[in-house]
Amino acid sequence: MVIPFKNQGAKSRLASVLSPQERRLLSFAMLMDVLDVVSGQGPATILSRPGLNIADIDSDVEIQESELDLNDALNALIAEVARHGWPSDILIVMADLALLTEKDVAGILNCDGDVVLCPGRGGGTNMILIRSPRFRTCYQGLSFPKHLAFARQTGLEVSVYESFRAGCDIDEPEDLAEVLLHGRGRSKRVLEGMGFSLSENGRAGLCRSSGYEI
Amino acid sequence: MVIPFKNQGAKSRLASVLSPQERRLLSFAMLMDVLDVVSGQGPATILSRPGLNIADIDSDVEIQESELDLNDALNALIAEVARHGWPSDILIVMADLALLTEKDVAGILNCDGDVVLCPGRGGGTNMILIRSPRFRTCYQGLSFPKHLAFARQTGLEVSVYESFRAGCDIDEPEDLAEVLLHGRGRSKRVLEGMGFSLSENGRAGLCRSSGYEI
Repeated sequence: MVIPFKNQGAKSRLASVLSPQERRLLSFAMLMDVLDVVSGQGPATILSRPGLNIADIDSDVEIQESELDLNDALNALIAEVARHGWPSDILIVMADLALLTEKDVAGILNCDGDVVLCPGRGGGTNMILIRSPRFRTCYQGLSFPKHLAFARQTGLEVSVYESFRAGCDIDEPEDLAEVLLHGRGRSKRVLEGMGFSLSENGRAGLCRSSGYEI
Repeated sequence: MVIPFKNQGAKSRLASVLSPQERRLLSFAMLMDVLDVVSGQGPATILSRPGLNIADIDSDVEIQESELDLNDALNALIAEVARHGWPSDILIVMADLALLTEKDVAGILNCDGDVVLCPGRGGGTNMILIRSPRFRTCYQGLSFPKHLAFARQTGLEVSVYESFRAGCDIDEPEDLAEVLLHGRGRSKRVLEGMGFSLSENGRAGLCRSSGYEI
């Protein structure tokens, strides 16, 4: 299991409702929630730029630092596993899947295919199970159709694992409502601790104890 | 199966990107997609305000007209089924689930419980399976937590069916991207026919052949 984690300037699209310090707190809470879920399924590695403070991580997990950008770092890792004779498949899990459950991880692991893609909201790819050294990630923008096209063009058998919870990555202010509605872990408690609660404006909105609606 | 359908002024939150006529076209296309999916699982009834043009519906389906608002109409229907000795369970399916598949309908039908709730994005309830005459719907605003609380307070056994596709109701402009990304039916073709395609702005955005980005 590989969990890419952005330790600097993460969650910039939440800047309208969270301060930099709050975004950092929430990012770590979501990472912890994801680690709690994946840790039962095998060894987990956090892939991060240099400077991640290990003391912040209260979980038994390997941290791999890389100066490379996300795709280059992931594809170097795929090449590295291939060089070692592919001792085990690679499951990439995004660090902001605050609603993820063990059922979702088991769900993708049980799918057939050289590559299994789990779509996120808005064309993203929230998890990828890689069973072939020929796959490469193409994160950025509409990564789900890109990954699908890449796998097909490369002649790989690709399948799709769809899940309400695994499909819910937390990027935009409206996503915070999903954490309050369906979350079970630290991320929900962190948001509640910041004073967030649900409000009713069409789809769920957010209210902060300061009183203004978001 | 009951599919509530708003035949007047539907999809008002899409008004910034679709004309009234286009919203009507898309609403019908989504209804047809939903009917295609549910029709294999048993008789379907469209619940609508008076004035739905049957000629618009090219499917073998019963249309039940009611002057009542959504909850009153649904709860009258629950009471009616109860008066007849509950000959069959009631599955409510929203008419705007453009990504729904037969697997989702089978999925909720296979769940245990007096009531099974299928959450939608933003606190909505996209499907409800009702096996008890004591349940009442509370659609409006954050209906998912309301339905959950009502079922529990009424002493009913409630379970939750979660699905990426069934969780994706089409209300906001950003939801149209999901139809283009993951749709398989008429709704996708209707949107493409209107000139929509995907664009890359953070999460998937929309582009219309007129050239402006949404």
